[in-house]
Amino acid sequence: MRIAVVGAGALGLYYGALLQRSGQEVHFFLRRDYQAVKERGLKVFSVNGDFHLSEVNAWRTPEDIGPVDLVLVGLKTFANDSFSRLITPLLGERTMILTLQNGLGNEEELARLFGGERIIGGVAFLCSNRGEPGEVHHLAAGRIIVGEHLPLDHSRIEELVAMFVAAGVDCRGSDDLRRARWEKLVWNIPFNGLCALLQQSVDRLLAVEATRSLVRELMLEVIEAANMQGVKKPIPASYAEEMLEFTDNMGVYRPSMQIDREEGRELEIGAIFRTPLRFGAGVGASMPRVEMLATLLEQATNPPRR
Amino acid sequence: MRIAVVGAGALGLYYGALLQRSGQEVHFFLRRDYQAVKERGLKVFSVNGDFHLSEVNAWRTPEDIGPVDLVLVGLKTFANDSFSRLITPLLGERTMILTLQNGLGNEEELARLFGGERIIGGVAFLCSNRGEPGEVHHLAAGRIIVGEHLPLDHSRIEELVAMFVAAGVDCRGSDDLRRARWEKLVWNIPFNGLCALLQQSVDRLLAVEATRSLVRELMLEVIEAANMQGVKKPIPASYAEEMLEFTDNMGVYRPSMQIDREEGRELEIGAIFRTPLRFGAGVGASMPRVEMLATLLEQATNPPRR
Repeated sequence: MRIAVVGAGALGLYYGALLQRSGQEVHFFLRRDYQAVKERGLKVFSVNGDFHLSEVNAWRTPEDIGPVDLVLVGLKTFANDSFSRLITPLLGERTMILTLQNGLGNEEELARLFGGERIIGGVAFLCSNRGEPGEVHHLAAGRIIVGEHLPLDHSRIEELVAMFVAAGVDCRGSDDLRRARWEKLVWNIPFNGLCALLQQSVDRLLAVEATRSLVRELMLEVIEAANMQGVKKPIPASYAEEMLEFTDNMGVYRPSMQIDREEGRELEIGAIFRTPLRFGAGVGASMPRVEMLATLLEQATNPPRR
Repeated sequence: MRIAVVGAGALGLYYGALLQRSGQEVHFFLRRDYQAVKERGLKVFSVNGDFHLSEVNAWRTPEDIGPVDLVLVGLKTFANDSFSRLITPLLGERTMILTLQNGLGNEEELARLFGGERIIGGVAFLCSNRGEPGEVHHLAAGRIIVGEHLPLDHSRIEELVAMFVAAGVDCRGSDDLRRARWEKLVWNIPFNGLCALLQQSVDRLLAVEATRSLVRELMLEVIEAANMQGVKKPIPASYAEEMLEFTDNMGVYRPSMQIDREEGRELEIGAIFRTPLRFGAGVGASMPRVEMLATLLEQATNPPRR
């Protein structure tokens, strides 16, 4: 399959490298890493084993790549206003667009621009970061759940799952992409939000009964809003307790949004908080704590006016 | 009137100095400032005019002071477990105890220890801080609203009001101390809490619509809980908007809890948040945002476990 990776941060570089290693024709649209990858290829340092791709199709513009079978979108969600410019040159008649981005609203925006029938969503559980130019570090996990934005032809999902599995990725299909996205938010909203706001790792929140309760209450607000969206099978309230116990086992873990804040990068508050809040409000869900957390995060990272 | 000041921080030193200047017999129980005050007296730098008391009754123990007519309590509320030790030696048959402390629960605790009939509450609106030992700075305001903990003999209130007014304090009596306390919380909970958490002055919160709304929502939760306590005259919801506009005029103002946090001092989260939440829960008031703010403040100032 001819694949273009758009948004080649840690996630795009990692999955793109795995796909190329498994024999797919992968083209990377690169900015920061272009020169390094062109000269020395791409190095992957992974808990599953390091590897080096010495020859990589690296490009400076999407026009240089041209139409592909699959666009793999790994952009940070605050760059979604670049979709049209970056993706249009990659589209042929039957090109699929798979977004592995965080949060909600990405499929909807892609569908609005390029037609919903092309759009596949993937929920990625990946812990990775960029190193030096031309390098990517895979620290843990990596599972992807993929599903159609519009349920038209589930065989596309089977094909993508098979492709990822052949590349060594733990991947499965879902017939309820919306539920998969919201399930991830049940974890992401409290832990990314509170850890970024307080600049404390997950273990510190879980060790204190009041913050542990707050995490649980945030999760229950997300679960209720998710179920009001019309998911096929409701997320049970017990999922919150499962996620708490799952996180107890993660030890001194810093969620990506905490790391982004500590390193002064922009946070994905829109996709992870504001869009879910808007979707929640659209069905009458009450999310006072999630709303408050979003506001506090925005304000904490809002530079003072001059 | 023979008066003992217990908890001679900025508030105790300031009001005590005004009372002494007006002719009352004031005794100060001092720790940090003892030596300086003994040697050089007490200097008050005030927006209403500086003054110096060269002779001050300064004592190292409450036993040295003995029974008085009025105990003026200015302790930080997290020191309330010293009430018994510090106040018992000051009590005679008819001694009144006036607490000018922050938040809720102080009168109740004093009443439990010393009998409710002695207890008068005062809600102080004072902007002051300590300077060098033997000095106190009065920056703005200073109004006190006093009321009986148990409505027994309103003439005591009239006497105290007259005494403070004679000392140059803007003072008035209230027949609903509970309402006065809660009214102050309508401001204190959102502004002290959010400014301390975010380490931003009030103007920055008010300049952004999302944080301004959050301040309003916190105020409305406090107003609802206040009214459910059985105040004589409900606080109208419009009081929130009044307080927002009042605060718009304060400019770059840092509430005391923000300053306390920035200077590494302990915060009065119990009296300003946890006790009001407990009183609210006792009458079935829902305060999810206030509760979340309390939890975040505690966690933000909670040192990591070793």
